[in-house]
Amino acid sequence: MSPHFAQRMEKVEPSAIKELLALGADPSIISFGGGYPDASLFPAAQLEQVFRDVIRAPGGAAMQYAPSDGLPRLREQIAALMVNDGTPCRPEDVLVLQGSQQGLDFAAKMLVDPGDVIVTEDPTFLGALIAFNPSQPAYVAIPMDADGMRTDALEVALKANPRARMIYTVPDFQNPTGVTLSLERRKHLIALANQYDVIVLEDTPYRHIRFAGETLPTLKSLDTQGRVIHLGSFSKVLVPGLRIGWAVAAPALLEKMALLKVAADTQTSTLNMAATSLFLDRFDLTAHIDLLRRSYRHKKEVMLDAIRQHFPQDVTVTDPEGGLFTWASFPAGFDATAFMRDVALPLARVAYVPGATFFPVDEQPNHARINYSAQSEDRIREGIAALGKALRQAGPV
Amino acid sequence: MSPHFAQRMEKVEPSAIKELLALGADPSIISFGGGYPDASLFPAAQLEQVFRDVIRAPGGAAMQYAPSDGLPRLREQIAALMVNDGTPCRPEDVLVLQGSQQGLDFAAKMLVDPGDVIVTEDPTFLGALIAFNPSQPAYVAIPMDADGMRTDALEVALKANPRARMIYTVPDFQNPTGVTLSLERRKHLIALANQYDVIVLEDTPYRHIRFAGETLPTLKSLDTQGRVIHLGSFSKVLVPGLRIGWAVAAPALLEKMALLKVAADTQTSTLNMAATSLFLDRFDLTAHIDLLRRSYRHKKEVMLDAIRQHFPQDVTVTDPEGGLFTWASFPAGFDATAFMRDVALPLARVAYVPGATFFPVDEQPNHARINYSAQSEDRIREGIAALGKALRQAGPV
Repeated sequence: MSPHFAQRMEKVEPSAIKELLALGADPSIISFGGGYPDASLFPAAQLEQVFRDVIRAPGGAAMQYAPSDGLPRLREQIAALMVNDGTPCRPEDVLVLQGSQQGLDFAAKMLVDPGDVIVTEDPTFLGALIAFNPSQPAYVAIPMDADGMRTDALEVALKANPRARMIYTVPDFQNPTGVTLSLERRKHLIALANQYDVIVLEDTPYRHIRFAGETLPTLKSLDTQGRVIHLGSFSKVLVPGLRIGWAVAAPALLEKMALLKVAADTQTSTLNMAATSLFLDRFDLTAHIDLLRRSYRHKKEVMLDAIRQHFPQDVTVTDPEGGLFTWASFPAGFDATAFMRDVALPLARVAYVPGATFFPVDEQPNHARINYSAQSEDRIREGIAALGKALRQAGPV
Repeated sequence: MSPHFAQRMEKVEPSAIKELLALGADPSIISFGGGYPDASLFPAAQLEQVFRDVIRAPGGAAMQYAPSDGLPRLREQIAALMVNDGTPCRPEDVLVLQGSQQGLDFAAKMLVDPGDVIVTEDPTFLGALIAFNPSQPAYVAIPMDADGMRTDALEVALKANPRARMIYTVPDFQNPTGVTLSLERRKHLIALANQYDVIVLEDTPYRHIRFAGETLPTLKSLDTQGRVIHLGSFSKVLVPGLRIGWAVAAPALLEKMALLKVAADTQTSTLNMAATSLFLDRFDLTAHIDLLRRSYRHKKEVMLDAIRQHFPQDVTVTDPEGGLFTWASFPAGFDATAFMRDVALPLARVAYVPGATFFPVDEQPNHARINYSAQSEDRIREGIAALGKALRQAGPV
C-alpha cells in the first residue's frame, strides 16, 4: 500500500541535516549543536518537592483532566510574569501551551492559507519553519544586521506582498544569530504591522536570559491594535522537559488558538502545569534566572575568548547580550555543512548546526550556529580549540 | 483590528454545548458528563515515587529535551504492551504522542485535503470531530447497532464516496455508545478498507477496561496491508494528567506523523515519558487495570440497576462490556439538550452529555451519554434517582 497524502504534507519533510545532527549525540563528540540549557543548573530538588506535593494533593486533581486553556492559577501567574516584564496582561489573555513551539503551529494554522506569506528574519528559527510548513506558506525573509531585522527592508517586503499575513520574529537574542532587535526597530515593526494589517508573532524563549545591556520592551507591550501574538516559555528558564509555554494575545485571536488547543491535544499535562504553578508559588524564579544569567554570561565569554584565540581571523562571530547562541560567519565559499561532515565531526570531534538550514528562501552555506549553554567551560575550551585547529588546517577557502 | 483567519478556521468553532457542560462543573451538581476516570483509584504513591526517581537520576536527563519520537525505553515498553495484546509491533513502529488526541489531529492532517471524506461511526467521539475539522473534511456517518458500525452500510458509503480517505472507529466500548465492534465486522471493515484503499484510524482509549465478554483482536492485528493507524493511551489506565498516548502504524505513515510531531510541539514531556516508563518497569500495570475493571464493572451495574429502577420504561440504555459510558435513547421527540438545560441541571442537579453533539452529519436530539466511572456508587444512585424522577415528572413527550 502506498498512502495518498494530503497536499499540506508536501513541505513536511525530514530536515536535510537530521542525520548529521544525530551524529552529534555521540558522547565522544563535543556538541555545540542543540539549544539545550545547562542540565547541571536544573532546580531538581525543588521540582522533586513540587511534583511530590501536587501528586499528594487531595482529590488527585493534578493527575486528572484539566481545562484546555490551562490551570487558572498558572494563567494568573503567567499574567503576573508578563506584567512584571512591562507587558499588560490579564489571566484570561493567557493560553497555556505544550511548549511555545505549539504556538507557532497554531498561529500559522489560524492565519495562513496556502500561498499566504509569512515574513521572517533571515536567517530564522528552523523549528518555526517546520511548524509553519504544514500551513503551506510562502516565505519572505528579511535581512538582519547587528540591530536585528532590517525594518527598512521589511517595509519594502510588506509593500510588495499584499498576502503577507504574519511577521515572525525572535526579538531577543535571536535563534540562530544571537542578535537583538533594537528599540527603534521594534517601534518601526509595530507601525508597519499596523499600516499593512499584518499579525506579529513574537517568540521570546530566551528573553529572560539577558546578561548584558538593557532590557527592551516586548513587541506585545508596544502593540497598539491587538495584533501581536506573544509566545513565552519555561523551557529555558526552568526545564525543557516540562514542555510548558504560553501565548498572550487579543481575545479574538486567543479564542481561536484555544479552540486549536482542544483540537490538537485537549490540554497540556495537568501534572506539569500544577508542578510549574507550585514552583512559582513556592520558589523564586527570578533568583534562579539570575543564576542562569551569570553562568551563561561566563560561558559566552569563555567561548568568545576561545574563538578569538583559536579561530582564523576571517571568521566573525556575534557577541550576544543574552540567550544561548553565537553565530559564526565564515568567508564566502566556505561550506559549513560539508566541513562539519568531513572535518569537524570525524576529525575534530566537534558538532555545531550548519547555518544553511536556517535560511527560509536562499540558503547561505558559510555560517554556523554555536551553542554555549550546554557544555562545561572546559569542554567549551577544548571543543573550540579543536574546531579552530581544524579550521586553520583546512586553510583559506 | 479584525483578524483575517485562514479558511481552515471556518469549522473551528466553540462546541454548541460548551456552556452547558461548564455548568456541570458546579460541585453541587452530580455530573455524569465528562469521560473522567475515577480519581480515587489513581496510583498516586507509585507516581510520586517514579517522579522522584526520574528527577533524581544523574545528569538531569528527565528534565532535558528528548527525542521527538519518544524515549526509546518507553517505545520498547509500548511495543511490548501491543505484542501482549496480540498486535505485532516493534519499538520503531511506536510514536509517543501528547495523548491519543494528538494522533487524531495528525492522521487528518496527513491524509485529508479539504473536501476529502472521513467516514465515522454515527454517533462518534466529539473530540475526534474537533481534531479533524481544521483539515476541512466532509463526513459520512455510518449507522451502528449492538455490534458496532454496520459494515454493510460502510460498504455502500465507500462505494459512493471515492474521496473517502479514512475510516475512524473506536472499536472497543465506543465513545459515546459503549458498543463494541464484533469480530466478524472487524474483519469485514479491514476487507473493505483494502478493497477501497482507505486508511483505518483505530482509537482504543478504553480497550483495556473490559469487564465482560472476550477480548477481540485489534484492527491493527487484522491489518494485512499496513493501512491501520492504531492509537493507544495511558489516560484511562494510568492517569489522564500525564497526557501520554501513542500511535502504531506502518513506517510510511509513522514517518510522516513523526514529522508532524516535531512541527506541532517538538516532543511530549520528557518528565512524563520517563515517569511512565519507570512506572511500567517497576509496577504491574495489568494488576492496576484489573482493579479498574472490577471497580468500573461494579459501577456500571450500580448505574444500570438504578436506571432500570428509576427511569421511565421507554428509555433504553446500552449495556457496555467495558469502558466508561452507557448511551441512553429517549423516545422520538425528546430533546436531551433542552431537558438538561431546563430540568436536569437546574432542578435534578444532574449533568450528562446531550447526544446531539456526537452526530457528525444529522443530529439526533433524543440521546444522552452517561458516564459511570467518575462518581462514587452513592452519587451514581443519587444522581440517577434524581434524573429518573425528573424524567417521570416530565411525562411522555
